[in-house]
Amino acid sequence: MIFRPDLDSQSELPLYRQLHAYFANLIAVGRLEQGARIPATRELAGQLGLNRTTVSAAYSLLESEGLISGQVGRGSFVTGTGSDPGTEPSGGISFANSRPSERLFPLDAFRASCRAVMERRDFAAVLQLGSSTGFEPLRRYLLEEARREGVLGPQDDVMIASGCQQALDLLCRVLVQAGDRVVVEDPVYPGLKDIFAQAGAHLVGAPVNQHGVDPDRLRALLLTERPRVLVLTSNFQNPTGATLPQATREAIVRAAADTGTVVIENDPYGDLRYTGQPVASIKSHATEGVVLLRSFSKIAFPGLRVGWVVASSTLIGRLAEAKQLCDLHTDQFSQAALLEFAVSGSLAAHRETVIAAGRARLEAVLEACARHLPPNSHFTRPEGGMNLWVRLPDGLDAAALLADAQRAGVSYLPGRHFAVSRTETNGLRLSFAGLTPREIHTGVGILGEVFAAGWERSRATRRLEPTPALV
Amino acid sequence: MIFRPDLDSQSELPLYRQLHAYFANLIAVGRLEQGARIPATRELAGQLGLNRTTVSAAYSLLESEGLISGQVGRGSFVTGTGSDPGTEPSGGISFANSRPSERLFPLDAFRASCRAVMERRDFAAVLQLGSSTGFEPLRRYLLEEARREGVLGPQDDVMIASGCQQALDLLCRVLVQAGDRVVVEDPVYPGLKDIFAQAGAHLVGAPVNQHGVDPDRLRALLLTERPRVLVLTSNFQNPTGATLPQATREAIVRAAADTGTVVIENDPYGDLRYTGQPVASIKSHATEGVVLLRSFSKIAFPGLRVGWVVASSTLIGRLAEAKQLCDLHTDQFSQAALLEFAVSGSLAAHRETVIAAGRARLEAVLEACARHLPPNSHFTRPEGGMNLWVRLPDGLDAAALLADAQRAGVSYLPGRHFAVSRTETNGLRLSFAGLTPREIHTGVGILGEVFAAGWERSRATRRLEPTPALV
Repeated sequence: MIFRPDLDSQSELPLYRQLHAYFANLIAVGRLEQGARIPATRELAGQLGLNRTTVSAAYSLLESEGLISGQVGRGSFVTGTGSDPGTEPSGGISFANSRPSERLFPLDAFRASCRAVMERRDFAAVLQLGSSTGFEPLRRYLLEEARREGVLGPQDDVMIASGCQQALDLLCRVLVQAGDRVVVEDPVYPGLKDIFAQAGAHLVGAPVNQHGVDPDRLRALLLTERPRVLVLTSNFQNPTGATLPQATREAIVRAAADTGTVVIENDPYGDLRYTGQPVASIKSHATEGVVLLRSFSKIAFPGLRVGWVVASSTLIGRLAEAKQLCDLHTDQFSQAALLEFAVSGSLAAHRETVIAAGRARLEAVLEACARHLPPNSHFTRPEGGMNLWVRLPDGLDAAALLADAQRAGVSYLPGRHFAVSRTETNGLRLSFAGLTPREIHTGVGILGEVFAAGWERSRATRRLEPTPALV
Repeated sequence: MIFRPDLDSQSELPLYRQLHAYFANLIAVGRLEQGARIPATRELAGQLGLNRTTVSAAYSLLESEGLISGQVGRGSFVTGTGSDPGTEPSGGISFANSRPSERLFPLDAFRASCRAVMERRDFAAVLQLGSSTGFEPLRRYLLEEARREGVLGPQDDVMIASGCQQALDLLCRVLVQAGDRVVVEDPVYPGLKDIFAQAGAHLVGAPVNQHGVDPDRLRALLLTERPRVLVLTSNFQNPTGATLPQATREAIVRAAADTGTVVIENDPYGDLRYTGQPVASIKSHATEGVVLLRSFSKIAFPGLRVGWVVASSTLIGRLAEAKQLCDLHTDQFSQAALLEFAVSGSLAAHRETVIAAGRARLEAVLEACARHLPPNSHFTRPEGGMNLWVRLPDGLDAAALLADAQRAGVSYLPGRHFAVSRTETNGLRLSFAGLTPREIHTGVGILGEVFAAGWERSRATRRLEPTPALV
């Protein structure tokens, strides 16, 4: 197929958006079908006389919408059909977003918190330039909470960042240099691994199963790789939903201490336990060498970017310096409002609501998976959080089936987004926390049909393949 | 002097803070006088059996408070007397902070903007995860403003960042690699140069005088250095207050185009013109190769971290990707509140207030400098912004005199903080925007006395020096 987009360099719509719209349209109307190859950026830029970065920007946008997928050295291929997996399609059901349901947001309680901030005698100071370590009243509150929980070592301190994402980015800047080895869970969410990959780290994946990483394999990996940093999500890992058992946590602390590896305990989901017993945080087992990340984003409002770090005061000092250069400090209004939301009791009340809803949603997704997924599918059984990991029967490609699912009005994220050292092409993430039990049952029901149809097709294809010659 | 701090590793106060308090106290009570040497970090860590990073953290904190100053290879020296130049001392007058006066904040108008956000029908969506390019209604508003001003090229787009500081940091990540040359003004504020220095760039200073950089010298510098990036503050530069004339702006655009250098036009102060005629932005002279940075932080509320970038859509695409990894997106509540503050007319009304106040403050500081500074002092004559640059008579050291000034209740930032390729030891920044005309007159009056006394001492010292032998 020859591509002849009608581009207008005088238009107010940037060229890369025009090019994006051209391809999105070809895909939507079916002229570019799933699996079709589109030229490499350099190739298309040459053909059209465009700057290569223009083509790259258009492709990035298409890829972010799940429409195409680039493969190094092979060019890009059409993977989607125009429904954006990043947003809930109208009338559709999206399992693609690991975020809380905004239908549960306690808006009146939060409005009251905002009003309380606005009535503070020092409201003008809230709006003035703040500290890189965070809004001090919130920081003191979090210090006290950390002390109460037993995760604040004698040398430790707390600083606030713009969510766990920024906390990870700052840690990467301060701890990791290009070429350093960093062990992450495999699979793991892209926002985590991409930070370290972007910084030139050598990523090593530690396979995750239903119970998280295997402590013996992890110890062996640490001894072989001697990584600078090990990042683990202790509770309800994204994407698998796995929680590390107590014994594993203790073993990890010992193994990391032996190899001098800094453990980053990424724990944005810890408050969202729907069933089972809480496990003491990794950080509570080690006064040194463990950095704990927490956030308000998963339990309360993701649009307010407020997370925090518990670490040695020396490391906090370095993180605060990095933060100063990155963005001076985290937004003060949101810090003050979330503090008010917490101390007023609204956070605890909201947590009850979220946990009750989450429990019902978790039960629904487990029941629906058991009922609807094809035989020989496997899925994790999280005790909280927002995500569950499905492994389809061997031979099924979750990325390829996504197009069919989207046509049927349901979306999810296929395994390749989460791959580190190995790709589970039959893996996929179901984010269930933003959907009602009814939506979950309907959505998984549709997925079951799509996957079953895919399974039938794949059996039919295999039957039609010629028997391989023996010599 | 032998240092024997009484440190308690069991204390809840981290060791570095205990060490900091020990030195701060020695300085405050006068046992460590200005100019006294304190041991290098390695040395003190060895003496006290501490981790070197603990000592570094304590020293960083002392340095950030203006109490000590490190000199590479020579150790650290006491420079202050315990009044923190970063905060207004009680009863004292601080010229140290380039930020708006919170006494001028229009709190009622801003409360009304917040209430309007809280009453939005889509308030829940404001609190939900947002876009890396910014809160879309605000982004559209800024696009339209940029179009109206004539700074939006046909290929351009707008994205929102957490203040100009983050915009600079993202640009550095996307454009600059270790070893690249980056030309910045000299002197320039630390938050700007440190971003690029931290990234391993080779910084080259372009000297700034009353009219900003000299266009011929800058062209010669670009041709010699072939820098990747040139960063200029077009209006009321920090620290000099200089504004680039129209002809210089045009010459810069041509010169940068010739050497393929990306021009970053950092313009957080442009709205704060108190006198004289506005000059069209550098960005309006070039459809390509110029990136414009703007912010709400200097005109409205610095505690809400919202700035924006106008650049080619290709570059915006790359910045948005970097932003996604850094912190996902900028705080949504503040973006929505500032949009409301702008469209409701409150921003324009507040701007009138700030400009009227700024005009009176600028007049006051110019008059006070003319009246009180010692003969042979020089100072810039800004037409807006927050800062003015003073050069004391040769032989006076602004950093050394700061201690005397602080004892007399007045602080400022000495030239060394702003140095790139050359240090003006007799230079200092007076940030006047946060002080009333009365405070300005009193403060500069005190500085005049302190500097005059320093000048007398320095003459006396010179008289006492033995005549140098001729052979």
